[in-house]
Amino acid sequence: MNLSPIGVYDSGLGGLTVVRALKRVLPGEKIIYLGDTARVPYGRRPAQEIRRFAIEITDFLVSQGAKMVVVACNTSSALALEYLRQQRRVPSVGMIDPGARAAVRATPSGRIGLIATESTIKSGAYNEAIRRLAPGATIMGVACPALVPLIEAGRIEGQELVHALEIYLEPFKRGAVDTVLLGCTHYPFIESQIRRILGPGVATVDPANEVALAVYRALNDLGLLAAMEAGGASHHDSIASTGDVKFYVTGDPEGFSRVASRLTGLPIRARKVSLTSPSSRSGVGETSDAMEMFATTFQVSGMN
Amino acid sequence: MNLSPIGVYDSGLGGLTVVRALKRVLPGEKIIYLGDTARVPYGRRPAQEIRRFAIEITDFLVSQGAKMVVVACNTSSALALEYLRQQRRVPSVGMIDPGARAAVRATPSGRIGLIATESTIKSGAYNEAIRRLAPGATIMGVACPALVPLIEAGRIEGQELVHALEIYLEPFKRGAVDTVLLGCTHYPFIESQIRRILGPGVATVDPANEVALAVYRALNDLGLLAAMEAGGASHHDSIASTGDVKFYVTGDPEGFSRVASRLTGLPIRARKVSLTSPSSRSGVGETSDAMEMFATTFQVSGMN
Repeated sequence: MNLSPIGVYDSGLGGLTVVRALKRVLPGEKIIYLGDTARVPYGRRPAQEIRRFAIEITDFLVSQGAKMVVVACNTSSALALEYLRQQRRVPSVGMIDPGARAAVRATPSGRIGLIATESTIKSGAYNEAIRRLAPGATIMGVACPALVPLIEAGRIEGQELVHALEIYLEPFKRGAVDTVLLGCTHYPFIESQIRRILGPGVATVDPANEVALAVYRALNDLGLLAAMEAGGASHHDSIASTGDVKFYVTGDPEGFSRVASRLTGLPIRARKVSLTSPSSRSGVGETSDAMEMFATTFQVSGMN
Repeated sequence: MNLSPIGVYDSGLGGLTVVRALKRVLPGEKIIYLGDTARVPYGRRPAQEIRRFAIEITDFLVSQGAKMVVVACNTSSALALEYLRQQRRVPSVGMIDPGARAAVRATPSGRIGLIATESTIKSGAYNEAIRRLAPGATIMGVACPALVPLIEAGRIEGQELVHALEIYLEPFKRGAVDTVLLGCTHYPFIESQIRRILGPGVATVDPANEVALAVYRALNDLGLLAAMEAGGASHHDSIASTGDVKFYVTGDPEGFSRVASRLTGLPIRARKVSLTSPSSRSGVGETSDAMEMFATTFQVSGMN
């Protein structure tokens, strides 16, 4: 029995979709969440930078008592997780392997669409992980650089999101995939919009539940569960209501709290934490580049 | 994929029975083994000391690159593992929970015998773990302080071992248990002698295989496996033959190598390592106290 919290991090608020799944599978566990909002989005940063962030954030979470670290960010999982595991001994669970398992289980035809950040797509991490489980699978990856900034800004109901999604998801109709993997933890917040555009013939897959199950199994085998039994589903779909999740951000806590509360429907109050020297921060202002990025870096990485 | 070794430790050579199981389930994994032979036996030492040893040894194993620590010593698992998990973040697997699972699965009647060191029996750790899985189980624990020193000295074929076992195992006949859990990693080396005395109506249970499976699952969920697949059984029941297990001892490496090679049938060459200041060491000489302990501390901890 171990009452230390589970550490969870993301570039911003996407990881809250993973916290939601963790609270469902492991209602008795305390959680510390870190949203690296001063440096969001991660999706086009060089791997070296993503790795440095992963170490800094993990060290912070462990300093707060974390018994495990959940990398609730696909970009960080794809680019930094192997490095993190070499550099730090705290047990960690990422998005890619669980996401690959969920996608392979969901697809009848083996033709899988993947939407993710540019870095995740370019890393090839999902292709590798899926092919390991299903060597005959074909994966069509589409980088969606505009989505994270729009979701971080809370702009998920306007025409700009719909317009972006229509362009991003178009190749999947040509590609005849039956399953689209949400390869970024921000995307479950816009899953209904994605489904509407994909139509009824295509399923969407969120790795979060599979991640939560991997966390449960690992905590159990490592003797680190807070409660001796897993408990079932919790009565309320709680992230913050039980008071046992602490939220930290590297950027503006008010902005995060406002958008996070709106997206989750729960009263979330984040506190600011400083991980690095002020000179290396860039601020949430990058959000304003969203449409520029959207215009210039749209990219389909095909059925290689 | 992670090529770092699994660290394994025991007070002496008992943990080799766990290494054997690990190599069967995970033939592709490298292993570093530490036998704390300068301080064996652990079975009557105070918890505080066992905890200090656990930290010292874990720090050594991690300094050698260990990605996980297997506490292949029941006494250390019972007395120090929770503390170790609070103090160090390296993932760890101990003997008690897997052993309890294996025993509960094996017993038809729910009446389980347990043989272990005095400290393991007194800790009540197995009672707790078994009752968590099978609240109606009855556990009869017998402390066997003479066994570890005899096995460490390689004296497993003489009359003194048979005589000790006859006394230790007698209560199980009165208690009508159907299963005897080998609650010390040294005991599988004398499993045939134990079975002969217990007779055909009583099964013996070695937790090692269940431990190896827990290690496999945790490495898999944490993305730490050396090979992407578990591989099947290896062709030869190898501990040392593949050359990917390194052996360290805190005491006399020649004595360990000689007895370990004889017990496993494999050429084992251990190297000496120093974990503590010389003043805190006591040497292998405690083996000579074996029969005295046997005479004075025989103890049955009943069906509480």
